[in-house]
Amino acid sequence: MIIDCHGHVSAPAELWAYKAKLVSHRGAHGRGKVNVTDEQILAALNKPEICAHGHLEYLDKVKTDMQLISPRPFQLMHSEKPGKLVHWFAEECHNIIYRQCQMFPNKFIGIASLPQVAGAPIEGVFPELERCIKQLGFKGCLLNPDPFENGVEEAPPLGDRYWYPLYEKLCELDVPAHIHGTSSRSERVNYSLHLINEETAAVLGLLNSAVFDDFPDLKVVVSHGGGAIPYQLGRFDAPSLRRGGTRLRDKLQLLYFDTVLYTQDALELLVKTVGPERLLFGAECPGVGSIEDPETGVLCDDLKPNVDRIEWLSEADKKMIFEDNARKVFNIT
Amino acid sequence: MIIDCHGHVSAPAELWAYKAKLVSHRGAHGRGKVNVTDEQILAALNKPEICAHGHLEYLDKVKTDMQLISPRPFQLMHSEKPGKLVHWFAEECHNIIYRQCQMFPNKFIGIASLPQVAGAPIEGVFPELERCIKQLGFKGCLLNPDPFENGVEEAPPLGDRYWYPLYEKLCELDVPAHIHGTSSRSERVNYSLHLINEETAAVLGLLNSAVFDDFPDLKVVVSHGGGAIPYQLGRFDAPSLRRGGTRLRDKLQLLYFDTVLYTQDALELLVKTVGPERLLFGAECPGVGSIEDPETGVLCDDLKPNVDRIEWLSEADKKMIFEDNARKVFNIT
Amino acid sequence: MIIDCHGHVSAPAELWAYKAKLVSHRGAHGRGKVNVTDEQILAALNKPEICAHGHLEYLDKVKTDMQLISPRPFQLMHSEKPGKLVHWFAEECHNIIYRQCQMFPNKFIGIASLPQVAGAPIEGVFPELERCIKQLGFKGCLLNPDPFENGVEEAPPLGDRYWYPLYEKLCELDVPAHIHGTSSRSERVNYSLHLINEETAAVLGLLNSAVFDDFPDLKVVVSHGGGAIPYQLGRFDAPSLRRGGTRLRDKLQLLYFDTVLYTQDALELLVKTVGPERLLFGAECPGVGSIEDPETGVLCDDLKPNVDRIEWLSEADKKMIFEDNARKVFNIT
Amino acid sequence: MIIDCHGHVSAPAELWAYKAKLVSHRGAHGRGKVNVTDEQILAALNKPEICAHGHLEYLDKVKTDMQLISPRPFQLMHSEKPGKLVHWFAEECHNIIYRQCQMFPNKFIGIASLPQVAGAPIEGVFPELERCIKQLGFKGCLLNPDPFENGVEEAPPLGDRYWYPLYEKLCELDVPAHIHGTSSRSERVNYSLHLINEETAAVLGLLNSAVFDDFPDLKVVVSHGGGAIPYQLGRFDAPSLRRGGTRLRDKLQLLYFDTVLYTQDALELLVKTVGPERLLFGAECPGVGSIEDPETGVLCDDLKPNVDRIEWLSEADKKMIFEDNARKVFNIT
Amino acid sequence: MIIDCHGHVSAPAELWAYKAKLVSHRGAHGRGKVNVTDEQILAALNKPEICAHGHLEYLDKVKTDMQLISPRPFQLMHSEKPGKLVHWFAEECHNIIYRQCQMFPNKFIGIASLPQVAGAPIEGVFPELERCIKQLGFKGCLLNPDPFENGVEEAPPLGDRYWYPLYEKLCELDVPAHIHGTSSRSERVNYSLHLINEETAAVLGLLNSAVFDDFPDLKVVVSHGGGAIPYQLGRFDAPSLRRGGTRLRDKLQLLYFDTVLYTQDALELLVKTVGPERLLFGAECPGVGSIEDPETGVLCDDLKPNVDRIEWLSEADKKMIFEDNARKVFNIT
Amino acid sequence: MIIDCHGHVSAPAELWAYKAKLVSHRGAHGRGKVNVTDEQILAALNKPEICAHGHLEYLDKVKTDMQLISPRPFQLMHSEKPGKLVHWFAEECHNIIYRQCQMFPNKFIGIASLPQVAGAPIEGVFPELERCIKQLGFKGCLLNPDPFENGVEEAPPLGDRYWYPLYEKLCELDVPAHIHGTSSRSERVNYSLHLINEETAAVLGLLNSAVFDDFPDLKVVVSHGGGAIPYQLGRFDAPSLRRGGTRLRDKLQLLYFDTVLYTQDALELLVKTVGPERLLFGAECPGVGSIEDPETGVLCDDLKPNVDRIEWLSEADKKMIFEDNARKVFNIT
Repeated sequence: MIIDCHGHVSAPAELWAYKAKLVSHRGAHGRGKVNVTDEQILAALNKPEICAHGHLEYLDKVKTDMQLISPRPFQLMHSEKPGKLVHWFAEECHNIIYRQCQMFPNKFIGIASLPQVAGAPIEGVFPELERCIKQLGFKGCLLNPDPFENGVEEAPPLGDRYWYPLYEKLCELDVPAHIHGTSSRSERVNYSLHLINEETAAVLGLLNSAVFDDFPDLKVVVSHGGGAIPYQLGRFDAPSLRRGGTRLRDKLQLLYFDTVLYTQDALELLVKTVGPERLLFGAECPGVGSIEDPETGVLCDDLKPNVDRIEWLSEADKKMIFEDNARKVFNIT
Repeated sequence: MIIDCHGHVSAPAELWAYKAKLVSHRGAHGRGKVNVTDEQILAALNKPEICAHGHLEYLDKVKTDMQLISPRPFQLMHSEKPGKLVHWFAEECHNIIYRQCQMFPNKFIGIASLPQVAGAPIEGVFPELERCIKQLGFKGCLLNPDPFENGVEEAPPLGDRYWYPLYEKLCELDVPAHIHGTSSRSERVNYSLHLINEETAAVLGLLNSAVFDDFPDLKVVVSHGGGAIPYQLGRFDAPSLRRGGTRLRDKLQLLYFDTVLYTQDALELLVKTVGPERLLFGAECPGVGSIEDPETGVLCDDLKPNVDRIEWLSEADKKMIFEDNARKVFNIT
Repeated sequence: MIIDCHGHVSAPAELWAYKAKLVSHRGAHGRGKVNVTDEQILAALNKPEICAHGHLEYLDKVKTDMQLISPRPFQLMHSEKPGKLVHWFAEECHNIIYRQCQMFPNKFIGIASLPQVAGAPIEGVFPELERCIKQLGFKGCLLNPDPFENGVEEAPPLGDRYWYPLYEKLCELDVPAHIHGTSSRSERVNYSLHLINEETAAVLGLLNSAVFDDFPDLKVVVSHGGGAIPYQLGRFDAPSLRRGGTRLRDKLQLLYFDTVLYTQDALELLVKTVGPERLLFGAECPGVGSIEDPETGVLCDDLKPNVDRIEWLSEADKKMIFEDNARKVFNIT
Repeated sequence: MIIDCHGHVSAPAELWAYKAKLVSHRGAHGRGKVNVTDEQILAALNKPEICAHGHLEYLDKVKTDMQLISPRPFQLMHSEKPGKLVHWFAEECHNIIYRQCQMFPNKFIGIASLPQVAGAPIEGVFPELERCIKQLGFKGCLLNPDPFENGVEEAPPLGDRYWYPLYEKLCELDVPAHIHGTSSRSERVNYSLHLINEETAAVLGLLNSAVFDDFPDLKVVVSHGGGAIPYQLGRFDAPSLRRGGTRLRDKLQLLYFDTVLYTQDALELLVKTVGPERLLFGAECPGVGSIEDPETGVLCDDLKPNVDRIEWLSEADKKMIFEDNARKVFNIT
Repeated sequence: MIIDCHGHVSAPAELWAYKAKLVSHRGAHGRGKVNVTDEQILAALNKPEICAHGHLEYLDKVKTDMQLISPRPFQLMHSEKPGKLVHWFAEECHNIIYRQCQMFPNKFIGIASLPQVAGAPIEGVFPELERCIKQLGFKGCLLNPDPFENGVEEAPPLGDRYWYPLYEKLCELDVPAHIHGTSSRSERVNYSLHLINEETAAVLGLLNSAVFDDFPDLKVVVSHGGGAIPYQLGRFDAPSLRRGGTRLRDKLQLLYFDTVLYTQDALELLVKTVGPERLLFGAECPGVGSIEDPETGVLCDDLKPNVDRIEWLSEADKKMIFEDNARKVFNIT
Repeated sequence: MIIDCHGHVSAPAELWAYKAKLVSHRGAHGRGKVNVTDEQILAALNKPEICAHGHLEYLDKVKTDMQLISPRPFQLMHSEKPGKLVHWFAEECHNIIYRQCQMFPNKFIGIASLPQVAGAPIEGVFPELERCIKQLGFKGCLLNPDPFENGVEEAPPLGDRYWYPLYEKLCELDVPAHIHGTSSRSERVNYSLHLINEETAAVLGLLNSAVFDDFPDLKVVVSHGGGAIPYQLGRFDAPSLRRGGTRLRDKLQLLYFDTVLYTQDALELLVKTVGPERLLFGAECPGVGSIEDPETGVLCDDLKPNVDRIEWLSEADKKMIFEDNARKVFNIT
């Protein structure tokens, strides 16, 4: 069984139109809501938008049996003001996801975003997180390390006490945080690169701090194969050798990583670096990689064959990656 | 014949979804475009969204024969960065409007927005303005006096030399500017009030300057009955009496005003203040006022009866308001 | 009897010179005080400064029997720093007003300004407010919704909890707040327009919030006929129809308005909109409107005839406007 | 004959009230002007305001025969916006000074302020400077090294090319610049200390640059005995010894200094430091020092006896200080 | 022969003490210089500072025959003000490097840093670049894509016209730019991670622009194995497939990369990604990686064996990496 | 016996190199430490760096028997971020000073700097202050009135409650504060002038407040002869005469001053102003003044003869200045 732990919702245009209105009226029209029928929601899952295939068809094509779906992160606008816009939009995203999960209970599992308002106390996300977990049956949440979205101000690093109430809440709810940035206001670092940079910083921020000493049960999954960490591991490991204590390389075992990388070589480096026990299959289909490589005729994000191709992984290893780890981390029964 | 000079496009959700994406990827996905069929565009005109009726049905209901349609101003995001987002979105809006005009050539006439990028030279709007007028057959444009959208920085007042190249271009193209703000970043002055405030400031900025001395052929229509000007006329007129020269009250004859006011009393005050020669019928249907007054059962923006009801206006006066002035100002043949 | 509820002090130049010094030494010279004799104060009341007549003469001319006088609002410099300048100057203004009231106990009634320091807690105004009401016998106060004076920062809207301690204090003292902005740091919106914009925003901020639910005894008078509200009423009423609950139009009955408008048409619109029960005669003499209309030979702010001219008002209505409402709201016995 | 080269105008309160209005309406009332009669101007010269004596009486008392009078510097508000306020107020100050000079042609000589607008090109001061020198017969000008008035931004040091057009103009007009700061926006450094700090910085900025190489004919008088320079001379001289070239101590001979110091010891230090050839008598009467020392019964700013008391100065030296230097530097015939 | 193309100077403490003084006196002490003898310079090369061995000994130990040495980038303080500090310090660094090259002409080759002053035109670096290349015999320069050092402001991306004069100058001088960030003012992204992030952004900024179309002869070496590019290649390649034209993967052949990675797996990924033709041996000894791995007993930055260990590279390939490419790119004869 | 109460440490270059690294890695390398041998520390005391003589030799030359040594203030970087840099560097400075005091227990006495982090609560300096006093045996501390180092933000004046916890701690420890600024970020006021300006402001801030009423036992020494105070005394004394109460001139007796002035005249003015009871000999050798006056052949900072030369001081007076006052204020037994 193939579980893609890193998927994002394909929603009707009305959801995004709702967002466009929010950032236009800035709350003056009130909360409102997204009015879409189940047919529209289904149509969105069948519409070829990001690529030549609809979402459902695409999952079949790449042989994904189950997918964890969260809001499209780059749309989450955590840096917009007033903060209620962030909340309202996240709630509507979650409602759509919930309805898709209801429609396809064996295929989709909901993952919440946190309505993080740049500069606001982290506790503000709790009500919606609890609604998602307790009422909507979601199994985890995205955690954005930079709600300022690469703006002028800077969020505290993930090792900072600012985040502790959230870690406590996640442990209490027994759900993992999936590290995933949102947008970027910078003109030189676009959002796609920003995500990668944030993941690298998140790994360092968490592992060069006392977070896992203080929250030994905290579960964190790092997106996109951990940013630059596996490739630049020596660079960040060396200082930990100087400092003594557990070396950074070994502390990676405190985290989980997903496989959202689009080359075989990168995937293999990741597996070698963190091992199958800490790896969750993720393909983010459809998404950035949903394009055919003209040389091979293969979709860039058809990642199952990439895993299969690794000869030195046992079948049990692969099963861990494809299914077991996701079930364990996200409590999927 | 009834010409509503102040209408905004009812577009498919895909247009707004396009905008939502732009402000999320900030240009990283490239220009892209809005992929919608004529059927979708038509559906948008028939969909009850802002009110209980679709756009086309609503026009019939309020007996509007022809409507000048421009982008929804509050969506224009002039203060977003980078500036290319502003341009791309305006262009897509105009393309949708153009297609609606092609579909209903006797009903719709296109009005451009100017892709004003806050802080950038005004000349940057010329190419798209010229495309709209010369290639798409549009007949005028919206002018936003505050591209910073009530932000921290402040645009020069409309009497400032900053705007002169635009006035020159408008005269050259022989098209009017319709004063209309966009959004507001303020938490205490929402966009709807900001529009009103900007219209008042626009009238004062234009009339307390040399603009009409320098551009005697410039045509400017002020939205929503001129903001607070007719009501607070004495307040602004009195200083002009002190200064000498033409009094402000009389300088109002240099401008045009539309009738987008939702009470009979306000409309009458406007007509008394500026006279039928400077008044263009506008109802902005559907829009803010598309709601039924529960006491009267009448739609707030069903404004034709309000004009008809003014006994002291001659039929010729009313024809000027309903049709002739719009034809003259917007060069509608 | 004619009570003008909206008058501002005509003070000796020494008061303004005191202010000029404050903003020059920024407190370095200490508190100081304004040294003027009663003769100088009297002379100021007889000096033709704003117009061709002295203050006292002007009141006679326009047949005002009693006037509520407060500091000249545009001088109050609420955005200057350090905050003690704001306090010192307000206190000196009040002292002058107090002396004028002592001189003319049947003609003048004192109204305080609040020494609002931009960005400081509102409680800071209480000592001077209490001195004015309890010791100087003043009967109300001006409330500036924007102590930042149209600067870069923004005050909370009037419905915000920031203002609640003030509302509580006003109820406790049983005195009304008269909404009146001060100056404007903007180059495109001068102070005179800023006042109007602030009044519109104040009405919306108060009525679209829970203020009058929480403070049912709070008395608020809105200056200058309510900014743009009566003219743009439909625009702001329509959204309240969508939201349900009491419509904005009807909520206007929670407020009071003064008649400081300089055209007959505007006055009539105001009376129609809010009714005589909520209207207080105000003429702000001498002030902005103290100039003769060359066409009519009438002073723009000679407003009593404007009220008299409204045929559809009963004598009792007019008495309410001219006298009774002021007595009730301001507790004038 | 005693010439006090450093005096400031004693003007009617109406001048300061004019300023207070300017910073309140920010230009909205237009240019306006100060309406005062010659009687009022004369009264201002006879009114005991800063001290127990009127200006004219005070000059007699301290035996000053002739005084150079400029605007009160701390009132000049160079950091206010818009810049036209700075200009208008400076012009009105100069007009009052001009009228006093006309009234007392043998007693008063006018000195202009420069209407320096913080952040604007220095050339903006030329028209008013030329008006003062060529039309009003003034003999010099104040130069404010910090038009930002100790604000957030910082002006270029006096050795910067920013100031060169001014130096060129001063040479062309053959008038000296009298270094004198204005106000201070700081809460920890009040304007009085700011003046001193600026004078020290001005001396260093001028002498540690090429200004006097490039403008050998430039005449600069430093106020208040040169700030901290004579006292801290060794501190600033030592680095010049390291650098080689002319030592700072000797470069002081490129400047002039006034004697506005209120202790005998300080005055003697100044004379020793710069010598009588570079010293101009200044007493700034009435001003900061116009208060009686209770121990001696002498006015702090009665400075003539202080000079007289210096035994090691010859009569010719004293005449230079009292009269000749002022005549030479300010071209007083 | 082994050429390490990426080395940084081991300088006497006096050089860094010079910098510490510069940022303390901000230029007040003047230019000054670093006074060190050849003995001190030699001692610095023999002093175990970063690791247990001196620089020269370390090179022997890791069998490096020749090393290109540039200033320690994290010390370059490009964001400090005034800009002359940046220049002075870079010049002193270069002088030390020059002296080391003179002492060991067969071992060391100088590489300049560019004295990039954040916010200043790039042309300001030309004089020192030319001095280094033409007079000191240096063979290349470091290029910092972010002179603001992760501060509030943002430099233009490397594809921006801002950088074109530099590219033109580099082509004219026929020297390569070695991409290398400096420090980071961020508390969440330290300088070491910032370097990596900047390298990723630099690759994208250069290859997603017209730079190599406009400067086909420009030579650029990317530090530290290209940041995250080889690992995240698929992520950045996929969008280029959508856009059409040359895919990003292939455009990597327009750049050179160094091997400064401290794990065998990462190195192999790099070689696979860019091929031996575009790869230059770099070990940055001594530096971040100069620490012994306790498990292997091998120094992390002893990278020659890592290259040797790659079986699928031919000897000619390895010679290219170790020597030939560096000779070609840096014109080492 | 001659005690120089105002000396700064001559440290090995490694101390400053440590600082240079701190501001480069901003904490990423961790705390680290300065590795220097006693020989290096001794060498630093013998190395002619600031002038032609080493520190120890210089003290002999100018006949100083004992010197209080503190960190070089201009290096203390109180405005750098993160704040731990400030702490780490101060600690290292103190450690070096401590070792020098251990080496020369009869010559050197340690004075701490306070690790003041701009914008942080003053209590943050207590641990290091206590370590210095209680563990290292230091006898006092420098107090920087402007930890923002002439930056955009402004510290509270010394009379503000912000500083009260420090005053309380100083009284508790019974050690004096020696007022001494650090660096200056301004381009027009360099650090050397900034020190002087700050001393003037410090005197005024302390004496025009309630500090000595609230802390009668507080001991404060003002550097460099009190900035501009003795020279400009009349200017600051006069307002205190107006205000009444103790005049500023007399309040100077609440403070102590050191003699770090490099001219005889200035020194004499200081002695006259504050009297020998409040004066501590200070020469800051070696320092700014360690340069020979070419005209006299005397070192500018050889200040003992300057004191000796004052004929009107008794031997007892001189002993107070040279020794007794320092012993009393700094508790030197």
